[in-house]
Amino acid sequence: MTNIYIQTPKIGVAIGDQILNLNEIAQLFDGPELREHQSVFKETTLNKFMGLQPKAWKEAREKIQQLLSVNNAILQDSNIRNRAFTPQTEAIMHLPATIGDYTDFYSSIHHATNVGIMFRSKENALMPNWKYLPVGYHGRASSVVVSNTPIKRPYGQTLPVEGAAPVFGPCKLMDFELEMAFFVGGFPTKLGEPVKIDAAQDHIFGFVVMNDWSARDIQKWEYVPLGPFTAKNLGTSISPWVVTTLALEPFKVENFPQNPPPFAYLAHDDKFNFDINLEVNIIPNNSSVSTTICRSNYKYLYWTAKQQLTHHTITGCNLNPGDLMASGTISGEESDSFGSMLELSWKGTKPIKLNDGIERKFLLDGDTVIMKAYCESDTYRIGFGSCTGKLLPAN
Amino acid sequence: MTNIYIQTPKIGVAIGDQILNLNEIAQLFDGPELREHQSVFKETTLNKFMGLQPKAWKEAREKIQQLLSVNNAILQDSNIRNRAFTPQTEAIMHLPATIGDYTDFYSSIHHATNVGIMFRSKENALMPNWKYLPVGYHGRASSVVVSNTPIKRPYGQTLPVEGAAPVFGPCKLMDFELEMAFFVGGFPTKLGEPVKIDAAQDHIFGFVVMNDWSARDIQKWEYVPLGPFTAKNLGTSISPWVVTTLALEPFKVENFPQNPPPFAYLAHDDKFNFDINLEVNIIPNNSSVSTTICRSNYKYLYWTAKQQLTHHTITGCNLNPGDLMASGTISGEESDSFGSMLELSWKGTKPIKLNDGIERKFLLDGDTVIMKAYCESDTYRIGFGSCTGKLLPAN
Repeated sequence: MTNIYIQTPKIGVAIGDQILNLNEIAQLFDGPELREHQSVFKETTLNKFMGLQPKAWKEAREKIQQLLSVNNAILQDSNIRNRAFTPQTEAIMHLPATIGDYTDFYSSIHHATNVGIMFRSKENALMPNWKYLPVGYHGRASSVVVSNTPIKRPYGQTLPVEGAAPVFGPCKLMDFELEMAFFVGGFPTKLGEPVKIDAAQDHIFGFVVMNDWSARDIQKWEYVPLGPFTAKNLGTSISPWVVTTLALEPFKVENFPQNPPPFAYLAHDDKFNFDINLEVNIIPNNSSVSTTICRSNYKYLYWTAKQQLTHHTITGCNLNPGDLMASGTISGEESDSFGSMLELSWKGTKPIKLNDGIERKFLLDGDTVIMKAYCESDTYRIGFGSCTGKLLPAN
Repeated sequence: MTNIYIQTPKIGVAIGDQILNLNEIAQLFDGPELREHQSVFKETTLNKFMGLQPKAWKEAREKIQQLLSVNNAILQDSNIRNRAFTPQTEAIMHLPATIGDYTDFYSSIHHATNVGIMFRSKENALMPNWKYLPVGYHGRASSVVVSNTPIKRPYGQTLPVEGAAPVFGPCKLMDFELEMAFFVGGFPTKLGEPVKIDAAQDHIFGFVVMNDWSARDIQKWEYVPLGPFTAKNLGTSISPWVVTTLALEPFKVENFPQNPPPFAYLAHDDKFNFDINLEVNIIPNNSSVSTTICRSNYKYLYWTAKQQLTHHTITGCNLNPGDLMASGTISGEESDSFGSMLELSWKGTKPIKLNDGIERKFLLDGDTVIMKAYCESDTYRIGFGSCTGKLLPAN
């Protein structure tokens, strides 16, 4: 006999190298906010839990901390323990939520400046609107995939010779973009009712690491005047674990200075910027040696997540729990903190040196991109799940 | 006693002024394609039915035609008749499907040319990429609403004086865009596997009329370089009834001539253009008199729906049943066939004359926009549901 065992995705919390399966302990969430909503932990995605209010998220967090404390006997019970914990190595990761809509911002001033210098000039690097509103665009939700999903080099149209006719073939300038993204939570908002800046935080459930794979040559030919389209919808990878906004609280830092001051609808005095270390590693094709080619930080973002979310809704756009909003490429000021190969190789003019004497300007088939994020203080460290993807050759 | 009666949305077919409720007659779909899938007609949206194959859509259509023929006794039975029909006047319309992703193309050559002339020059009206690929962008799915949902004039940032600082306030240039859109059907496609042009039709379930409400002044300030964003996600209205691609078969006309010839991946010889008459009517605030201000036609589109869908997937984007792809504003060559007030009033320089001596350049609060579509031959006529929306004042 064979034991055919089909797994349904379950909701879990990472504890060291183990996963605590919340569906096995749903009944333990008996506080005032959650006792009527224990079924959210039996779901196959986080959408229902995200759709509760921040005080429910907080209660869940506190309950889990309580359960994990050495003084708590419940999870010490070997019966419960066996049922409730799974080694991370045995789990298959899924997207944390069904993503209704996905939006990508462009909020790193160093990234926007770099791109502006490369494609326009130093004097006109930032577009006139950039410091007045968090520039962003709607992306494709269906092609957001979980870390470790391979990505295929796409075919598409490009314009190798300015003024000549375009050509069709495999993308020649495949790139990553180092980003972070947050999942929207809270009750769905209504069409025509913008989220005020003071309420924005109640809709920011938690964060993941994102690789916004980009076909640069396809993007360049297609994006005027309506923005990136097929150059981006070939796949967008996110880390499977959502680190909640609450968990990031100890790592808050000053917001990026904004000049001119933002319009009142975007202005907030409280800190909503985070010291999250980011890095990009490449394992080149036919190698097992990883090289860190970028060290950046979430704190370099000019616009805060609260400002992104509020601006997104200013004309009345409605939000749903499970919507995903990404930061845009996060580059720092120094050249080793640039969050894309376009910037690291300065448009292909400067090879990026990997270990073993290997060089890259853009990604080659078989290259694996691994993005990592962590927060660290003297006393403790929060690791994000890694966001990994291997580039497969074009068909 | 009060009879409290909460309705769940049901799937229906419009027959004259009645609606045939398919959930009441699901068991009658007993052909080879549908007998195992009768539950699709018991759903609250069309997604599951759209997710079947074209031969199932055809079988459903033929069964309904059979049932409605004068020789068929089944629906003549007064018991079934009473249960299965609802007067249209008593029904509340809903979105036909849950829209996973919504995309908007820009496929009318006259519209793209008009906008190009207004914002650039006659010589550079069309961007270099326009005739090589169907330009499009990802839109916001959550803010697509069914006809008759009121739309609120949005607040947002605009730049009244070039070179000066932007201002924040209610949109001053509210506009409609006359579009049609198709719902994607068939099995979900896989990431990394483009839909070939020969298979594209199998994923084009049917069409609706769309009003892509646009805040022109907000759009102008925000859209460079990543495309329209908050100027569009304030609401997008569609007609509730989906006219299937099968039903449009008798109204096929020659494709728009394409020069240069499209790349092989976009080339198809079969006709996939449709003679669908379109009109836009305005009932101005405080009036009950409607004026038709635009008569256009779906057939003016340069790119076919098959080309739009195939191009959308060329880099590997995956599709799901219920995805929505819109045409972009459909303008004809003549000035009374322009599909937006931006074009009809030529950027506000030429008032649009309504009945009773009323004039408009852009929409005023309280104006109602009614879009209609129909196909007509000597022998019969197919009417689309109207796509109506009233503009409410800003908060």
